[in-house]
Amino acid sequence: MSDVSNLIREMGRKAKAAALKLAACPTSVKNAALIAMADALEKQSERLRIENEKDMAQARAEGLNAAMLDRLKLDPKRISAMAKGLRDVATLTDPVGEILKDWRRPNGLRIQKVRVPLGVVGIIYESRPNVTADSAGLCLKAGNACILRGGSEAIHSNRAIADVMSAAGKTSGLPDHSVQLVPTTDRAAVRELARLDQYLACIVPRGGEGLIRAVTESATVPVIKHYNGICHVFVDKAADAAMAEKIVINAKCQRPGVCNAMETLLVHRGIASDFLPRIAEALMDRKVELRMDTAALALIQRSGISNQKSKLLRLATEADWRTEYLDLILSVRMVDSLDQAIEHINTYGSAHSDSIVTRDETAARRFLTEVDSATVYHNASTRFTDGGEFGMGAEIGISTDRLHARGPMALEELTTYKYLIHGSGQVRE
Amino acid sequence: MSDVSNLIREMGRKAKAAALKLAACPTSVKNAALIAMADALEKQSERLRIENEKDMAQARAEGLNAAMLDRLKLDPKRISAMAKGLRDVATLTDPVGEILKDWRRPNGLRIQKVRVPLGVVGIIYESRPNVTADSAGLCLKAGNACILRGGSEAIHSNRAIADVMSAAGKTSGLPDHSVQLVPTTDRAAVRELARLDQYLACIVPRGGEGLIRAVTESATVPVIKHYNGICHVFVDKAADAAMAEKIVINAKCQRPGVCNAMETLLVHRGIASDFLPRIAEALMDRKVELRMDTAALALIQRSGISNQKSKLLRLATEADWRTEYLDLILSVRMVDSLDQAIEHINTYGSAHSDSIVTRDETAARRFLTEVDSATVYHNASTRFTDGGEFGMGAEIGISTDRLHARGPMALEELTTYKYLIHGSGQVRE
Repeated sequence: MSDVSNLIREMGRKAKAAALKLAACPTSVKNAALIAMADALEKQSERLRIENEKDMAQARAEGLNAAMLDRLKLDPKRISAMAKGLRDVATLTDPVGEILKDWRRPNGLRIQKVRVPLGVVGIIYESRPNVTADSAGLCLKAGNACILRGGSEAIHSNRAIADVMSAAGKTSGLPDHSVQLVPTTDRAAVRELARLDQYLACIVPRGGEGLIRAVTESATVPVIKHYNGICHVFVDKAADAAMAEKIVINAKCQRPGVCNAMETLLVHRGIASDFLPRIAEALMDRKVELRMDTAALALIQRSGISNQKSKLLRLATEADWRTEYLDLILSVRMVDSLDQAIEHINTYGSAHSDSIVTRDETAARRFLTEVDSATVYHNASTRFTDGGEFGMGAEIGISTDRLHARGPMALEELTTYKYLIHGSGQVRE
Repeated sequence: MSDVSNLIREMGRKAKAAALKLAACPTSVKNAALIAMADALEKQSERLRIENEKDMAQARAEGLNAAMLDRLKLDPKRISAMAKGLRDVATLTDPVGEILKDWRRPNGLRIQKVRVPLGVVGIIYESRPNVTADSAGLCLKAGNACILRGGSEAIHSNRAIADVMSAAGKTSGLPDHSVQLVPTTDRAAVRELARLDQYLACIVPRGGEGLIRAVTESATVPVIKHYNGICHVFVDKAADAAMAEKIVINAKCQRPGVCNAMETLLVHRGIASDFLPRIAEALMDRKVELRMDTAALALIQRSGISNQKSKLLRLATEADWRTEYLDLILSVRMVDSLDQAIEHINTYGSAHSDSIVTRDETAARRFLTEVDSATVYHNASTRFTDGGEFGMGAEIGISTDRLHARGPMALEELTTYKYLIHGSGQVRE
């Protein structure tokens, strides 16, 4: 076995030992550790900044662009935000120990289904060093040990954050190796981690599609995937046009670079002649490029628009319906019916978040039932798909998988269950 | 792409279309279909027997042993048992539509977490043709389309069962392609199925470790694994010896060839001199071979046993603690403490089913908390780990994974959830 293989295997073994102890760790100890970690991060802000500067210097030398440099940077404000995140997690309800079901069988056996930690969670992520603190905090609160593998561009920052957190955790009475960071930037470590099914309960990759595909491809450990969001808003013929405009603008423009932003607008033919020109104007006022199907484009062109704005209009191609722009670009299609809208979403969408705007309760009910997505909305923006907005307190990501965790993934989704069976000598006949 | 690849992809596409319709299919239609399928299997018993005879002839020509031939065989009694299984599933509560949570956010959004089908489920299995009917029935009741891939030795039987069920389903108003069987015995089909993440929600492999490893190795679709059971009974120093004897005998001997049978007995030193000779006699009376650690073996040998019986005694090796015998063989270890018992189980066990026999409530509580297994028992036989015994009505298997489904996997475990969000024009600030 290679050195990296041995290193990762040894980390896995230690993490599993830590996880067995963490599973029985009282809430008070976990909370005290989270707060001690937050304090330590703030107290050692200067050390973090020095380590971060090493990453920044390297990134500048490699010519990373301004946006990437900004993502990488740690300053006192961001360090405080990390600390606040940990303190917030300390205030959340501990999911471990919750009795999910409790029943008695005719033979007298009492069966309890109880929430317990997953065990060891692997997190593989890119760029932003705050993910190190956020992920470790959520894993710990749910009683899990974690093995973190950040991007090589942030290795000094991530090591420093993990060191500070580990030391504070130890002082607070957490088991050794509750939080471990893969210390090497060797790419082979990702594959080794993904194949460590002997010790890891699951892997959560956080990052671009390339990273997620690479992890899934090599994994024997279960992976909870966080793919893209091709989210739709369908403006039904029975929509309140003012409400629809507000929702469409919000879903597209409030923060276009995130997975729950709308990428495709579907407009019912029965409301299109009123609604489409109006929403197109409003979107183009906000510099949104519109990629429209033939019917929608013809309608807009007939409505008369300025030369200036017409530069923002294009005919959509088939590929557009499948594209996550993460930018001020929107695909627009006119549909003949609710059925066609549902079929479009189930064909081209990514089963993430989709919304119908309508006053017709029957249409809404059908949309919510038949659209095969993790989160389906009636008369609200898709932008609410978020652990915080759902009231979960925090999230480790938004799962696009259907198994175990679907949609926002927070503390409960970082747990599993076991059955406790209380008998009085029962044997099977 | 190869022919097999195209075939499987096309099956996936059709299954996904069926799954979207099945998700909205009323319980009454699903139940009527299950009953119609049961009736059709019985009515076409003769056709099934003729097809089964082709498999049997082939198997005899290939020299399969009597046990394997028996597993393969379909007779009127077994066909009726399949039919009864489907009728039983029809009587179970439909899990789809259950509201798991329902809450309102400060901004007025109402969020409902609702149980929905997984979508398309792949089942890969070996030998027994009844799995075809059992799996399809459970998948259907939970609103899932399924793609079944049975063993090549049962291909004629499986095709006939799937054909009869599909035809009956269609007549009852189920969507086309709700139940599909991979018609080819080409091994490449397993790999193609395991990589069909575009359409499949998950794969459940049912069979030997080799099959499960092969599927996991190539899969990009999430796999719910059903590995082996290395189950323990720990007889604590505070055990009721008569109860312990009854439980140990049951856990080992009632049906040794199944995954929830005991493979290792741990006995506390404080009760060993009384209990070990007694249980060893009782087990050897039932022809159980005992593989003991040095301390236990010495104690038994000192207690004086017949020459006849001493042939059933051996010194255990390290490998024995990790072996699933599925036979009348038992590893036995004397332990110094509850801690050592827990550590042994967490080190060598398979996290399936483990039991403590004790009158000491504190010891029991620690065992139930600290043993990291899907099902942990106090004063009962491990043999109860079973969907039927748990009151779930039926099971598709016993998951040894920690994600999504742990322990007995039945109808609820064949579902996921989605969020329905009811707004009145909310947008995100």
